[in-house]
Amino acid sequence: MSVRNLARRFLPILSWAPEYTRRTLTNDLIVAVIVTVMLIPQSLAYALLAGLPVQVGLFASMAPLLLYAIFGTSRTLAVGPVAVASLMTAAAIAPLAAQGSPEYLGAAIALAMVSGLLLLAMGLLRLGFLANFLSHPVVAGFITASGLQIAAGQLGPALGIHLEGETFVELILQLGPRLGEINPYTAAIGGGSLVFLFWSRSGLKALLLRAGLADRTAGTLAKIGPAIALVATTVAVWGFALGDRGVSIVGAVPEGLPSIALPPFDGALWMKVLVPALLISIVGYVESISVALTLAAKRRQRVDPDQELIALGAANIGAAVSGGFPVTGGLSRSVVNFEAGAETPAAGAFTAIGIALVTLFLTPLLFFLPKATLAATIIVAVLSLVDFGALKRTFVYSRGDFAAMVATIIVTLVAGVEPGLVVGVGLSIFLHLYATSRPHVAVVGQIPGTAHFRNVKRHDVVTDPEILSLRVDESLYFPNARFLEDRINEGVAANPELKHVILECPAVNTIDASALESLEAINHRLKDGGITFHLSEVKGPVMDRLKRSSFLEELTGQVHLSQYDAIASIKPELASSALAAERVRGTEEPEE
Amino acid sequence: MSVRNLARRFLPILSWAPEYTRRTLTNDLIVAVIVTVMLIPQSLAYALLAGLPVQVGLFASMAPLLLYAIFGTSRTLAVGPVAVASLMTAAAIAPLAAQGSPEYLGAAIALAMVSGLLLLAMGLLRLGFLANFLSHPVVAGFITASGLQIAAGQLGPALGIHLEGETFVELILQLGPRLGEINPYTAAIGGGSLVFLFWSRSGLKALLLRAGLADRTAGTLAKIGPAIALVATTVAVWGFALGDRGVSIVGAVPEGLPSIALPPFDGALWMKVLVPALLISIVGYVESISVALTLAAKRRQRVDPDQELIALGAANIGAAVSGGFPVTGGLSRSVVNFEAGAETPAAGAFTAIGIALVTLFLTPLLFFLPKATLAATIIVAVLSLVDFGALKRTFVYSRGDFAAMVATIIVTLVAGVEPGLVVGVGLSIFLHLYATSRPHVAVVGQIPGTAHFRNVKRHDVVTDPEILSLRVDESLYFPNARFLEDRINEGVAANPELKHVILECPAVNTIDASALESLEAINHRLKDGGITFHLSEVKGPVMDRLKRSSFLEELTGQVHLSQYDAIASIKPELASSALAAERVRGTEEPEE
Repeated sequence: MSVRNLARRFLPILSWAPEYTRRTLTNDLIVAVIVTVMLIPQSLAYALLAGLPVQVGLFASMAPLLLYAIFGTSRTLAVGPVAVASLMTAAAIAPLAAQGSPEYLGAAIALAMVSGLLLLAMGLLRLGFLANFLSHPVVAGFITASGLQIAAGQLGPALGIHLEGETFVELILQLGPRLGEINPYTAAIGGGSLVFLFWSRSGLKALLLRAGLADRTAGTLAKIGPAIALVATTVAVWGFALGDRGVSIVGAVPEGLPSIALPPFDGALWMKVLVPALLISIVGYVESISVALTLAAKRRQRVDPDQELIALGAANIGAAVSGGFPVTGGLSRSVVNFEAGAETPAAGAFTAIGIALVTLFLTPLLFFLPKATLAATIIVAVLSLVDFGALKRTFVYSRGDFAAMVATIIVTLVAGVEPGLVVGVGLSIFLHLYATSRPHVAVVGQIPGTAHFRNVKRHDVVTDPEILSLRVDESLYFPNARFLEDRINEGVAANPELKHVILECPAVNTIDASALESLEAINHRLKDGGITFHLSEVKGPVMDRLKRSSFLEELTGQVHLSQYDAIASIKPELASSALAAERVRGTEEPEE
Repeated sequence: MSVRNLARRFLPILSWAPEYTRRTLTNDLIVAVIVTVMLIPQSLAYALLAGLPVQVGLFASMAPLLLYAIFGTSRTLAVGPVAVASLMTAAAIAPLAAQGSPEYLGAAIALAMVSGLLLLAMGLLRLGFLANFLSHPVVAGFITASGLQIAAGQLGPALGIHLEGETFVELILQLGPRLGEINPYTAAIGGGSLVFLFWSRSGLKALLLRAGLADRTAGTLAKIGPAIALVATTVAVWGFALGDRGVSIVGAVPEGLPSIALPPFDGALWMKVLVPALLISIVGYVESISVALTLAAKRRQRVDPDQELIALGAANIGAAVSGGFPVTGGLSRSVVNFEAGAETPAAGAFTAIGIALVTLFLTPLLFFLPKATLAATIIVAVLSLVDFGALKRTFVYSRGDFAAMVATIIVTLVAGVEPGLVVGVGLSIFLHLYATSRPHVAVVGQIPGTAHFRNVKRHDVVTDPEILSLRVDESLYFPNARFLEDRINEGVAANPELKHVILECPAVNTIDASALESLEAINHRLKDGGITFHLSEVKGPVMDRLKRSSFLEELTGQVHLSQYDAIASIKPELASSALAAERVRGTEEPEE
């Protein structure tokens, strides 16, 4: 690859920056203002969710956006703190340090750094397929359960009570006994914000439409509901001095931009956050790539999954060096960015500048911001992640997938995010291997009047007690290698007159070393029992590979081009008399 | 199932005991004498290998044989202590208690008990497919590495030096510096036994043949080489009082049969041995079932894999209640049993009685038995397990399988048996998922003059810039779901005129919930880009399942019976002109 191509591949910014016009600039600037307003409450809230000071949320919404603008292939994806990754961050670092301590912040930064390095490595090594290990039902179950846990965790700050617990179940069990401790002012702010935010999701847009705004403008402006709630409740706390009445407020936020510095290398700490960082990276990547692909498709744009890993890696390293915490491409912010009309990643870069301006000049205004409002913002945001409908759809479609989904949800609610994810992934891989370990194997016979062979259970076919013909409808590899041995062993024990076994392989795309050894064992055992072993309809690449082993030399029978050829070579009179026989009606239905 | 059938299924003894004749009895008795003589050195040696007193090896060769005779489906399998399981036993319990202590023996018994319960549960729940998780290359690599480790561990006792270490690498590194500590008498006994035993594997049979014995008799008698070495060296130690010259001897062995008692239930201990017990169970089962299937095939007998789990479970529980340690069906002992002419499992029961008689009356004779002879017996037995040829064969056949095999060997040699097995299994599952995560997807076009569609890269075919036809040669499930999304995303981005995408599914045997969601996302995204999405050649069962989702209602295109039908319905003139075109020569080679 030339330097020029290499640069174009790893720096997607080169593909759009040269064509950047004044019109695009104006457009991207307007988008940036809207997204900045929407991002501020979200960034503050997700920092609190991760157990971090609010300004860390702002820090995590600057450098990552700039870096994604350089390295990302999606034109409209917006990166920053998101709900699930923030929850996973809190779960990962809570055991390592006390919330509020410098060590806690250091662990969050280390988590972003390790996560960024892992994503970068996965991108450079093209290991994006690792995300495949998270099946859709596991992701759906995990996000639903995370949403429930986040909402449960925010009930405390929203109502002004103190709930302690790491998991959904612990939190909910405490809620009842502590309801008496509710602070009425906090609950009024939190409850009011909740009601307003729920209403604003649909009602605000309708109101703006009635006020005469265009559909798209109304839809976009409706997204700033959280900003309105934030301003209104801050003013209320300041005006009525509710801070003195037990309403928890954000308080003094240090002014100024984050200092840029490589986080200290701490091998022991990095090892401790390695597994959580890997989980956060993969979950974040799955969320991000799915949003990116969906938005790109709407404008027929291209997203490169491997380059996206590199871009998210750079974004997280950026978060780490600027004092932030793990980030990824978020659904809601990307949709706002897209719908507001972002045309290039420059919109994201301008958003970063907007956030920087807020951080420089407006943080004093956050002093009276009640935490209850931020909690309400989070609750409304995450409840849209909870999707019980997926449970029903999956149950109807596939019991195995449903089991993996339910297990993920239950373990996450009871034991937390990491065990939930690990159990879900383990179970889905297990169920997958279980399913492939029992492939469909049919005993086949010749359809009279044709050279076709079909399942004896479904068709009137010609068979012979001396010949067992089996068709296997799956590639042969280690999860099912022994199953085939067992099936042939059974067939031989059940047919005392047997002299020939033919394995028809039209659906066998590969035979791995385990299956090869099973075939060798089958051949050897059949030979000991005086039975010859034949193959038919072996695909070209499979045959090429078999030639690299000694199997074909040891095979007691032959490899035939077709099942008919096999029978014709073993018992010519059987094959030809079946071919000449009158065709039985109704034997040509589609075959399972 | 009726009680009668249930009894026949779970008590295979009922299928042969009623037909037992006096002739079979005589025959089985002769076999039992031969096998008993062969088993005694093995049982003693494997007990030492597991770090246990020699008589525990005898105990483990009684009750398990009786129980297997009742529950086992193989007529000729012989169960008892085997080399690899003994090594794994030592590795599992060494961290739990000091060798020689009652706690160490207790842990070995607990290991047998938990292993037995696991096997029993797997048999009753029909979980025999769990053994599939061990691919052949991983098992082969593990057994080779275990053989090397066992041989290295026995060099110390065979030479009269003290080597400390848990792994092959640790043991070998100590060998050089300690060579000076060799006890010459011990080394003479150990070295002499080694030479004799290696010779006896081939030379003894030739000698017996020349002495006029029949081929089979000579072959069987040649297997008692270890017993000869045992008697000869014991006599030598006694005659020359070598015990006083630093030759380590077995010493006083408690007389009498083991007391039968359920091992105490110790939850904490059982939890500690759970994972090793699972690994020992599965490795033992894989070894045992493979021997059983191979022997059964020679006489066209049937082996039931699920019932074998129950039988091995019963055998291990039997070992536990009679003071033994984990057992399984062994290759060498089963082959001797088979070749000596065993006709029913009664031969195994009689062998158990033979061992009981030895335990009752002959243990005083073991006093002067040098441990070096037992070490030599083990070394000769396990070196036959080492198979470097398998490495080469696997390398030639499949790089992925080779990688799993090499990783298993290296990790086992460096870090021990459990890490080796876990890494091997993990890596082979990982490589399997990786391979299936990138299925073969071909862009296809119509072969002129036919209604066939083939890969555009291999054939001269008719295509259209408005239509993208993709054929996927694999079932669609979570490991490859996103790959398909990426491929279609790329295809769309590369074809600006595209209006239709057709997915040809002749090799798709299943579509899981993840792949369904990917198909829904593809359909949705294509719709946003103004492209219709079609399927063709969907198999019946796959179609039935798709009907249980809302995918078919949302699909922008249609499901066509054949790829030709799809094109004919989208662009009739294209399909018919291609069909009418002159056929291009040489386009009908076998398709990859």
